[in-house]
Amino acid sequence: MSKVVTFGEIMLRLSTPGYYRFSQSSELHVSYGGSEANVAISVANFGMDAEHITRFPDNDFGVAATQHLRKYRLPVDRIIYGPERMGVYFLENGAMQRPSRIVYDRFDSAFSKIKPGMIDWDRILKDADWFHYSGITPAISQGAADSCLEAVKAARKHKVTVSGDINYRRNLWQYGKKVDQVMPDLIEGTNYVLGGSTDIENCTGIKEKSFEETCDKFMKKFPSVKKVARTKRESVSSSHNRIYGVLYDGKKSYRSKTYELTHIVDRVGAGDAFMGGWIYASLMKMGEEEAIEFASAAGALKHSIEEDVNLVSASEVMALVREENIGKLLR
Amino acid sequence: MSKVVTFGEIMLRLSTPGYYRFSQSSELHVSYGGSEANVAISVANFGMDAEHITRFPDNDFGVAATQHLRKYRLPVDRIIYGPERMGVYFLENGAMQRPSRIVYDRFDSAFSKIKPGMIDWDRILKDADWFHYSGITPAISQGAADSCLEAVKAARKHKVTVSGDINYRRNLWQYGKKVDQVMPDLIEGTNYVLGGSTDIENCTGIKEKSFEETCDKFMKKFPSVKKVARTKRESVSSSHNRIYGVLYDGKKSYRSKTYELTHIVDRVGAGDAFMGGWIYASLMKMGEEEAIEFASAAGALKHSIEEDVNLVSASEVMALVREENIGKLLR
Amino acid sequence: MSKVVTFGEIMLRLSTPGYYRFSQSSELHVSYGGSEANVAISVANFGMDAEHITRFPDNDFGVAATQHLRKYRLPVDRIIYGPERMGVYFLENGAMQRPSRIVYDRFDSAFSKIKPGMIDWDRILKDADWFHYSGITPAISQGAADSCLEAVKAARKHKVTVSGDINYRRNLWQYGKKVDQVMPDLIEGTNYVLGGSTDIENCTGIKEKSFEETCDKFMKKFPSVKKVARTKRESVSSSHNRIYGVLYDGKKSYRSKTYELTHIVDRVGAGDAFMGGWIYASLMKMGEEEAIEFASAAGALKHSIEEDVNLVSASEVMALVREENIGKLLR
Amino acid sequence: MSKVVTFGEIMLRLSTPGYYRFSQSSELHVSYGGSEANVAISVANFGMDAEHITRFPDNDFGVAATQHLRKYRLPVDRIIYGPERMGVYFLENGAMQRPSRIVYDRFDSAFSKIKPGMIDWDRILKDADWFHYSGITPAISQGAADSCLEAVKAARKHKVTVSGDINYRRNLWQYGKKVDQVMPDLIEGTNYVLGGSTDIENCTGIKEKSFEETCDKFMKKFPSVKKVARTKRESVSSSHNRIYGVLYDGKKSYRSKTYELTHIVDRVGAGDAFMGGWIYASLMKMGEEEAIEFASAAGALKHSIEEDVNLVSASEVMALVREENIGKLLR
Amino acid sequence: MSKVVTFGEIMLRLSTPGYYRFSQSSELHVSYGGSEANVAISVANFGMDAEHITRFPDNDFGVAATQHLRKYRLPVDRIIYGPERMGVYFLENGAMQRPSRIVYDRFDSAFSKIKPGMIDWDRILKDADWFHYSGITPAISQGAADSCLEAVKAARKHKVTVSGDINYRRNLWQYGKKVDQVMPDLIEGTNYVLGGSTDIENCTGIKEKSFEETCDKFMKKFPSVKKVARTKRESVSSSHNRIYGVLYDGKKSYRSKTYELTHIVDRVGAGDAFMGGWIYASLMKMGEEEAIEFASAAGALKHSIEEDVNLVSASEVMALVREENIGKLLR
Amino acid sequence: MSKVVTFGEIMLRLSTPGYYRFSQSSELHVSYGGSEANVAISVANFGMDAEHITRFPDNDFGVAATQHLRKYRLPVDRIIYGPERMGVYFLENGAMQRPSRIVYDRFDSAFSKIKPGMIDWDRILKDADWFHYSGITPAISQGAADSCLEAVKAARKHKVTVSGDINYRRNLWQYGKKVDQVMPDLIEGTNYVLGGSTDIENCTGIKEKSFEETCDKFMKKFPSVKKVARTKRESVSSSHNRIYGVLYDGKKSYRSKTYELTHIVDRVGAGDAFMGGWIYASLMKMGEEEAIEFASAAGALKHSIEEDVNLVSASEVMALVREENIGKLLR
Repeated sequence: MSKVVTFGEIMLRLSTPGYYRFSQSSELHVSYGGSEANVAISVANFGMDAEHITRFPDNDFGVAATQHLRKYRLPVDRIIYGPERMGVYFLENGAMQRPSRIVYDRFDSAFSKIKPGMIDWDRILKDADWFHYSGITPAISQGAADSCLEAVKAARKHKVTVSGDINYRRNLWQYGKKVDQVMPDLIEGTNYVLGGSTDIENCTGIKEKSFEETCDKFMKKFPSVKKVARTKRESVSSSHNRIYGVLYDGKKSYRSKTYELTHIVDRVGAGDAFMGGWIYASLMKMGEEEAIEFASAAGALKHSIEEDVNLVSASEVMALVREENIGKLLR
Repeated sequence: MSKVVTFGEIMLRLSTPGYYRFSQSSELHVSYGGSEANVAISVANFGMDAEHITRFPDNDFGVAATQHLRKYRLPVDRIIYGPERMGVYFLENGAMQRPSRIVYDRFDSAFSKIKPGMIDWDRILKDADWFHYSGITPAISQGAADSCLEAVKAARKHKVTVSGDINYRRNLWQYGKKVDQVMPDLIEGTNYVLGGSTDIENCTGIKEKSFEETCDKFMKKFPSVKKVARTKRESVSSSHNRIYGVLYDGKKSYRSKTYELTHIVDRVGAGDAFMGGWIYASLMKMGEEEAIEFASAAGALKHSIEEDVNLVSASEVMALVREENIGKLLR
Repeated sequence: MSKVVTFGEIMLRLSTPGYYRFSQSSELHVSYGGSEANVAISVANFGMDAEHITRFPDNDFGVAATQHLRKYRLPVDRIIYGPERMGVYFLENGAMQRPSRIVYDRFDSAFSKIKPGMIDWDRILKDADWFHYSGITPAISQGAADSCLEAVKAARKHKVTVSGDINYRRNLWQYGKKVDQVMPDLIEGTNYVLGGSTDIENCTGIKEKSFEETCDKFMKKFPSVKKVARTKRESVSSSHNRIYGVLYDGKKSYRSKTYELTHIVDRVGAGDAFMGGWIYASLMKMGEEEAIEFASAAGALKHSIEEDVNLVSASEVMALVREENIGKLLR
Repeated sequence: MSKVVTFGEIMLRLSTPGYYRFSQSSELHVSYGGSEANVAISVANFGMDAEHITRFPDNDFGVAATQHLRKYRLPVDRIIYGPERMGVYFLENGAMQRPSRIVYDRFDSAFSKIKPGMIDWDRILKDADWFHYSGITPAISQGAADSCLEAVKAARKHKVTVSGDINYRRNLWQYGKKVDQVMPDLIEGTNYVLGGSTDIENCTGIKEKSFEETCDKFMKKFPSVKKVARTKRESVSSSHNRIYGVLYDGKKSYRSKTYELTHIVDRVGAGDAFMGGWIYASLMKMGEEEAIEFASAAGALKHSIEEDVNLVSASEVMALVREENIGKLLR
Repeated sequence: MSKVVTFGEIMLRLSTPGYYRFSQSSELHVSYGGSEANVAISVANFGMDAEHITRFPDNDFGVAATQHLRKYRLPVDRIIYGPERMGVYFLENGAMQRPSRIVYDRFDSAFSKIKPGMIDWDRILKDADWFHYSGITPAISQGAADSCLEAVKAARKHKVTVSGDINYRRNLWQYGKKVDQVMPDLIEGTNYVLGGSTDIENCTGIKEKSFEETCDKFMKKFPSVKKVARTKRESVSSSHNRIYGVLYDGKKSYRSKTYELTHIVDRVGAGDAFMGGWIYASLMKMGEEEAIEFASAAGALKHSIEEDVNLVSASEVMALVREENIGKLLR
Repeated sequence: MSKVVTFGEIMLRLSTPGYYRFSQSSELHVSYGGSEANVAISVANFGMDAEHITRFPDNDFGVAATQHLRKYRLPVDRIIYGPERMGVYFLENGAMQRPSRIVYDRFDSAFSKIKPGMIDWDRILKDADWFHYSGITPAISQGAADSCLEAVKAARKHKVTVSGDINYRRNLWQYGKKVDQVMPDLIEGTNYVLGGSTDIENCTGIKEKSFEETCDKFMKKFPSVKKVARTKRESVSSSHNRIYGVLYDGKKSYRSKTYELTHIVDRVGAGDAFMGGWIYASLMKMGEEEAIEFASAAGALKHSIEEDVNLVSASEVMALVREENIGKLLR
């Protein structure tokens, strides 16, 4: 069975119930989320082996976050712990025209204090098939950026496929480096890139007229990159989005069905669900057309799931791809 | 005032809150439901007398289920009790493209151990106006099938109108009999049938080109059957369905308005709500056109109600038929 | 900074959770609401000073309602207290075609026993910029009607702009006076009127072919009235409305964008949110076109907020007017 | 089987969860309670037939309160309805040294508007074995007092045993009559009286040195009274009380065991539970000693039950009398 | 690190919130529990390796129960799955004098259909240090009894220490065998027995005057048994128990401190917590005196923990043994 | 009316419901607390004017914490805001022998970045009667310590009475200074000190045989200190404590009644409640004996109140001092 390794921060997610605003709610719902861990759990839910590497605080919330990973079948022996705090993100669910809001409280977390040499990447990656990181990790701290690069290099050494979700988060990147000083080194070791034109421009300065042309130039500059995918989202309202995915393999562009997402339950983690689907599809050796449909369906389904993690099986995704069971009552 | 008697199993219904999946939820919402009892309570809510006959476990959950019926004005003196268990059904509410799911845990229930002779049908039906059963009951056990037939025969003897919702549940029917060995005897005593073409085919093997032609052949074979109705549902998603009802009286086919059901709250029991509406309309001697509109509006309204039971009054249904008060804020 | 004063009753609002009907729910959600107070809090949330004048019961619920106002930055020193009860309103949230329902239990409240002379309007209004009342207050009791007129007169004396939401609530008005015996005196001192053609007809008997013609005649009869606004709501269902606002300044009619409000969270207080927006826009000296857009966007946003009060900032309303951030996830 | 009839008001009970104070809680727990109805349900839970007569508002809360009675096996056909409101009581659970608090909002309820002639007492009481009232009912309004007397007279006519819980609630009695102008007429028709020395003094002015001497004089003045019982409560704290019961039959005084009630869950309705136990014991023809033990054990058990009603069976009470199963885990 | 293996059924535990009775509660709290699994998780929480072997249904609840084990660091690869149902137990928390109640619904579960040969005990036990079973497993079905004996024999073969909690549950044992036909074979392979005089008598017929004399005879008959422990519980009420433990090693009897357990949160699983403590203490090679104190403190602490599982660390237990931190607020 | 000013940090308090441990709970209850603010709100609840000075983050949680203060009648105009985070504390309620636990996550909060000069103490204190600080504030950061000293000096200048709760929190004090380098300067300006022998020793090195002797030496060294009080707590368990207070005025020691606190609801903030009571008693010019009884009763009552703040009135405290209403049901 294929094994996927991911690397990044996991935060305590505290969300208001229903559609209450922060100032209204006397209860917060507890869960755990982080872009790369969400990908790993997605892949594990599809039936593959997955492992998430991170650094947790050495307190009750580090324990609880560890249990979160274990619950979804991820090994946790190689997670490391430190005396610092757990990053927190507060979520207020939007509704209708009102946007959703996230308040981050993640500085100085145990993860942000990670340093190269703390993780034995060779041991972790030597039997892995895939390594995944996101643009959030190198934005957190110099140590996190360095560790991420260390991992990418180890992955290359062990011929592990590398994917990167090169999303750019403006309000991170506060440790002195700029995104375009850090990301190119990571992309150099990456084979599958998730990112739209703006992300590519932010990370590398490359900007062409169309997504495909941008990709061409990008893939020329970073020859390790074999495939680029992006998701496209149109927000009619917080409760109603339209999404589809596009996959470009350097030759041809494949576009998935468009999903009309009315009655959205929780959109956080939808990109991670897409990424998880794409990794799964790739490791299952689906063709590009099938792969972009699988990934997009996975991302679409996530919108119906509470919390960060895409709690769906591969067969549930396949059913949506085949337009089976939609809106049914399965007994 | 008219009196309607129904017969069938009631289960403990345990549903996850909001849109949480089974593995996410640390609470389950408790209610009670069963197709025929749902019909009886519907009719009672419309203002008629109704009685539901069943067999409950002789424990706290049998007591609670009895209280559920009593709450809605149903007499419970003729319910019987046994030492076996309460059937349970677990419900996970679907959302958007993700289907709803029911996990049944109903085998060896107190109801499944019912046997002919346990219920004094003569006493129960002698002053009744209507008897209703569904295709679920004969699928549960030989004893349940036999008791159902016993009831239908007693109903005929007392000239009580008989209706049957001949839905076919594939994963029941595990006691050795097949659906087409059992249902014909019941249909022979039935006057109003709720069922689509597939249900009729499953129960009797009759299959013609159109619903109306199928009904013609079906009504010829079962001359007691005077009317056949079906509901038609199109599932855009779990949150958005389109429904309408059709009523065939052997001569003409009547089709209700189509209801655009966006923002579905709970679709379980919608068929029972339709059936309850149809029984009420028939006993109120509405014409076919009015009857199918009333039944369909009742079924549509159910989608806005939490739990199995259609908690709406006849005047609320009539208001929807007349397109009054839709989406208003009534003070 | 501008200061807005409002006058009216605040009730304990007890609502069933989710979409449960009154008979299903073993919990009620507690909040506080009242048309004019909702307006005041709206305006306070936009950043202006606001004060609400009322009479509360001298018990724990009077204290809690006072805390509700204080929480939103309203001074409470001039609120008065009496030995009578707190009015209550019970809310059952509608869904889909099923209408929402309010059961009022507000008779003989502490507010209804208010009398002229109890409030020192001169002191309150001498430094105010705006006074607002609604047609609910004079419908409650003779004392409330008299106090309202006392306030309007004091406002005029101090050259405070006066607005009135002249909505007509048929099931109030039980103290012996009719709406058209009371409202004209209030309207005589009013500069900004919120009300549709029917409201104007109910209050004054004026009825012309179009809203604008009605307004012309109305403004001729009540020369103090400089502007009339109304909101127009089309209810596709309880979960889906369409709304826009219209503002008439005696010369020209300004109509806002239409908002497609799918996935409504709570529509109670939407008119108050519109009124709050209109007052804010007027005090900010926006032009008519900008004002009706601001007021309508405020009213639209309210549908996404739980409870009575429009918990949004002026910049959130402006973003909607400019169609920014709609349905986004703001980090 | 014996049949017990009770008469009195039922209120909507809204209690804060856990130990939150009124100003802290955003949820209220809904149930229904009223002294005499609590007695009736107690007796029904013990297996006897019971009926409660009252007047409810003709709205959703009247329906829900009716369902509350029906749930516990009480017939509701002879309940009457009116256009007025439902009385409400708000409960804040005390803890430790902090007392519990009730805020009543019960004036002008549908029950308070009851009048003699509205209830057909002859029909109701002709096949009854016991009629019970409390001192709350005649304190509510002249109509309630008159109806209560009407009932007591009808009971006497039909030789139905009459019991009265003559508790004196100082803050009721606001309709112009004093307790000692009204209670004597009721007591004249009463056979079993629940009340302590202070209650007897308040109602009749009789005050002797000891409870027994007071009873002697009281029973001499009211020869219909055959037995007097009282409960004695020592409040160590809101969480810890000590109680016992005393029964005097005109000759001898019987005192029950003392119950050490630590970890009190809800003490509201404990007196009603005692009364229910005493009625049951009397109708079961237990001796005085057994009766006072049964009643006191019933009252003790109530402290472990949430809400107003003593949800325990006769065998659970008997087990406590025999000191069986105390604190066990019954499987 | 030591490794402990346990074997037995895990059930879905559905408990009413707070002190509500079954008929009052519209929500049930979900967790998972089973005597032997509780022991394994206890031991894992103390820091040792533990594995629980069972058979789960192949449905969502089997998945959730697997996640429950995984959360607490237990490997789940050797759990097997079948098409049958998940056993359920419903729990109503007692309070004060009112006993707690469990309603079991566990017949025909996936576990009850286990058969010898389904589990590869050799592989599981060859590197284990301890095997634990309880008297519940052989009571469930012939297959469960046979599998348990199979495991005990494999344990002996691999020189794994065997412990048995020989509690006798009268309402199980419905498959045709009696407790004394089955238990002796299991005890023959057991080294550590948890059981009181009554358990020993039920299982083996041995009954002497004192616990120690009973043990002497018992240990003579079953020479593999080296130590016998029992817990002693005095129930002042459901909220207040007194407990201590006794350990007999064939020579001397060691008795722990008595714990005054007021304000009990949840006593289910207290015996399992004691057993977990005893296993840990034994594997840590504590002396008898220290061992019985550790086990008893573990059992005492469990009463403060919600749900079945003793969520405490070894250092928390040791702190209680040393009477440190009791009732403190640790910052 | 007297006015009390306090200074210190307020944190977001996130507590698990009931007795669930951190790893068990999927919900956290939200409130706000901080030692000095708790004192201010206590005093405000007693009816005096109070103001709390702090620095909040400029985000939704800063807004919500501001609303928390406003709710309880505190002016908030002089609170300052900064871009940093809100400190958080996680609370797990202990039960029985199991201790309660707090996990702090408060480093780098907006408050910790406060600097002298940011607050206009002259304006704030010129019309104040009392200023209160605690030993937590100078432990947070150099800036907080400096600001506190700045406030104490301003208070002295304006002849405002100064109190200090000189509790020593070992795991704070991480900015480079030691407690005995900072506290003496603050104590020099303090008139009322809350602290036990250990606190005095930690802050000043003074240690004598008895509390009184320690105080004598302490008051000699710090002649501004006129009174020292301490609370004494004996923890039978987390659910049962015993407390009393001692007040020493340099001549005589006054000891309050001992409170037997069984069934503790929430002990956090009990010391603050005592302090609030002492300030109130002092400003009301109660004698020492009365003052220590009032303060101790206030502290005792807090244990019955959920969350940090002592939500009781002065009359509720006085009732406890007089042993009135204890454990009653007040109607």
